[in-house]
Amino acid sequence: MPRANLLYAQSGGVTATINATAAAVIETAAKHPSRIDRVYAAKNGILGALREELIDVRLERPDALRALKHTPGGAFGSCRFKLKSLEQDRPHYERVVAVCAAHNIKYFLYNGGNDSADTTHKLAQIAQQLGVELHCIGVPKTIDNDLAVTDVCPGFGSVAKYIAISTLEASLDVMSMAESSTKVFVLEVMGRHAGWIAAAAGLAGKSENDPPHIILFPEVVFDRARFVAAVKDAVTRAGYCTVVVSEGLKDASGKFLAEAGTKDAFGHAQLGGVGPAIAEIVRAELGYKFHWAVADYLQRSARHIASRTDLLVSSKVGEAAVKLALDGQNDVMPVIKRLSDRPYKFRIEVAALADIANHERKMPANFIREDGFGITAAARRYLAPLIEGEAYPPYKDGMPGYVQLKRRLIAKKLPEYLVK
Amino acid sequence: MPRANLLYAQSGGVTATINATAAAVIETAAKHPSRIDRVYAAKNGILGALREELIDVRLERPDALRALKHTPGGAFGSCRFKLKSLEQDRPHYERVVAVCAAHNIKYFLYNGGNDSADTTHKLAQIAQQLGVELHCIGVPKTIDNDLAVTDVCPGFGSVAKYIAISTLEASLDVMSMAESSTKVFVLEVMGRHAGWIAAAAGLAGKSENDPPHIILFPEVVFDRARFVAAVKDAVTRAGYCTVVVSEGLKDASGKFLAEAGTKDAFGHAQLGGVGPAIAEIVRAELGYKFHWAVADYLQRSARHIASRTDLLVSSKVGEAAVKLALDGQNDVMPVIKRLSDRPYKFRIEVAALADIANHERKMPANFIREDGFGITAAARRYLAPLIEGEAYPPYKDGMPGYVQLKRRLIAKKLPEYLVK
Repeated sequence: MPRANLLYAQSGGVTATINATAAAVIETAAKHPSRIDRVYAAKNGILGALREELIDVRLERPDALRALKHTPGGAFGSCRFKLKSLEQDRPHYERVVAVCAAHNIKYFLYNGGNDSADTTHKLAQIAQQLGVELHCIGVPKTIDNDLAVTDVCPGFGSVAKYIAISTLEASLDVMSMAESSTKVFVLEVMGRHAGWIAAAAGLAGKSENDPPHIILFPEVVFDRARFVAAVKDAVTRAGYCTVVVSEGLKDASGKFLAEAGTKDAFGHAQLGGVGPAIAEIVRAELGYKFHWAVADYLQRSARHIASRTDLLVSSKVGEAAVKLALDGQNDVMPVIKRLSDRPYKFRIEVAALADIANHERKMPANFIREDGFGITAAARRYLAPLIEGEAYPPYKDGMPGYVQLKRRLIAKKLPEYLVK
Repeated sequence: MPRANLLYAQSGGVTATINATAAAVIETAAKHPSRIDRVYAAKNGILGALREELIDVRLERPDALRALKHTPGGAFGSCRFKLKSLEQDRPHYERVVAVCAAHNIKYFLYNGGNDSADTTHKLAQIAQQLGVELHCIGVPKTIDNDLAVTDVCPGFGSVAKYIAISTLEASLDVMSMAESSTKVFVLEVMGRHAGWIAAAAGLAGKSENDPPHIILFPEVVFDRARFVAAVKDAVTRAGYCTVVVSEGLKDASGKFLAEAGTKDAFGHAQLGGVGPAIAEIVRAELGYKFHWAVADYLQRSARHIASRTDLLVSSKVGEAAVKLALDGQNDVMPVIKRLSDRPYKFRIEVAALADIANHERKMPANFIREDGFGITAAARRYLAPLIEGEAYPPYKDGMPGYVQLKRRLIAKKLPEYLVK
């Protein structure tokens, strides 16, 4: 069987461990020199594949490639660029196939979430229609944890760990001083459609009396009066109240709380996230001294406190994706099948991309406590193993030894293609 | 010499390492059983001393006391309660002296910042006037790093490390996706009067081309036009721009940017910190896609990524404070004298509280780059050793093994005293 090249691309919001997946892809490919000649990485995700901007991985230093395992962000560049339907964007799909053909690429590994699974699925169809051999393999990744079929999405466990620890740490701080200072602390976390990350904050405590006292999920319609009563109750009971709020929180009319707010002096909708909006409700209704934090990108890039379980899962899907490609598979994604909670055991299975693309996994209803403000024992059983273990990066002079790649491109062979 | 008791109290904003100071006080006291009988800790800082709410440290589990070394927050409780002048608050000072006398406390260790040094100083004076033997020792602590005389304030190094790492991590994230997504990332950090914490973000990069591209210090009057030009320049050069802004940033009229803003629909001043305000300027003037984060309490409680240097310094001042008390010293504070930058070497010296109380240490002018948007080599030399080394807490089930104390109080001997 003649040797062919492999193209790897990163897509969508990056994570603390997506580069560990990249490293696993590169390492695994290197173990099959009789089958895989060169590994290329698209510069800035699918944009690089369209523009024929392909990074030659061989030109990176070996120690830099190893350092990918502990470097957050997307080292080859990622993008927010959604390919539309085959009808609308057929030239784009054909272009990717043409770029692959021009560079003897027979393995295309696309590392992303729902949209990327959809793109990979469509690409497999187009290649087949065109009669071009191209093994299109999706590689899962998303902090949103909303991919169907898989037990967990690589990248989620590390955000979950960061949020659980940050919630606990800030709560210990607030608790110390609540009598004469801040009584209510609000932490805004990511999760526009599903409350997986908010739920992870629940791991900070073991019971309803532990922080976080209130979690506001996007799955639960915000009820201002009930929320205010719950804050008051927590402050009365515990002396303080930690609130974790998902950016996707909505009111009864389906409007995001983050938007529901106020206008600035120029009539623009107030910027601020839902964190300050929730804090403002506490101030207006209860008058408690408050503080709020918005973790934003800090949470998804916090490689310094990544979950070892997440790192393992992130590596395994990279390794599996290469093997699936070499096994002649196409239009599939390696996924995680949980075998046991404690210790966390899993195996890699294979899912059809059609079963993943455009299916959003919601949080099960039985993960949210009946009062809507916390997580259940079932949620704990699911979440706890995902934050298990630490995987510290190496440090030098007090700073983590994160790497930046050279990202040298190979020579183009095709005419220029303008994407936008 | 008859045995006496020691009272330790935590004051003001807590830190990731103030409990390590507490642990060192307790351990050092235990090494002098012939001199120190019992160690008490005031519940919620000076409030506990006033109310005669004294925690009996002996009733805590030994392993819990050891765990203080790696637990953030203030385990005995802290407070924001400033004693005023001797004229105005004389009864308060006399009450603390009376509480100490009632419980055979001859050593009073007060762990805090400027205000606490002032309180300790006044307490020493009152005790002397009343002819009561009470060795009043200040113990330094503050993330603001604004105490005079000492090279560094315990607690600062850990915030500095957290902010430097978070700035780097978020920048790697933004860099990955800047072409098609967020181009400007704004991180708001603490520091109302001095830019020490903002300056620490500068350790994320090594040159002007590295993130953070712009630091906005409270020491530098905010110039909107220059700022906008600098953001545009960074995006042009690097493809993205990381901005770190100190909560204390002010405009030319001396107004905090965080307040300068906008009113909500009810006419209240907009909540939001300076982070969203700066992001809004970027949106309005340049139209770049932006994100912002507000680290708030997360930064000062982030024991999970504490600086080993900070932990060492925090322990040493606790140990030294007990020794100073036993040496018969009074009205003093142990401070850090730097002996070398690299490796960081220091020794403990003794400073008069009068030289510390009410002296605020500003950042030296030569720490801020000429353009006002970054740090100088001198700042790097000062800051770098303070974030050196990691000091991870132990973990169980993926979470740090932080402790909460029982905080059992001893029996009161005096009539009730109403503080507020």
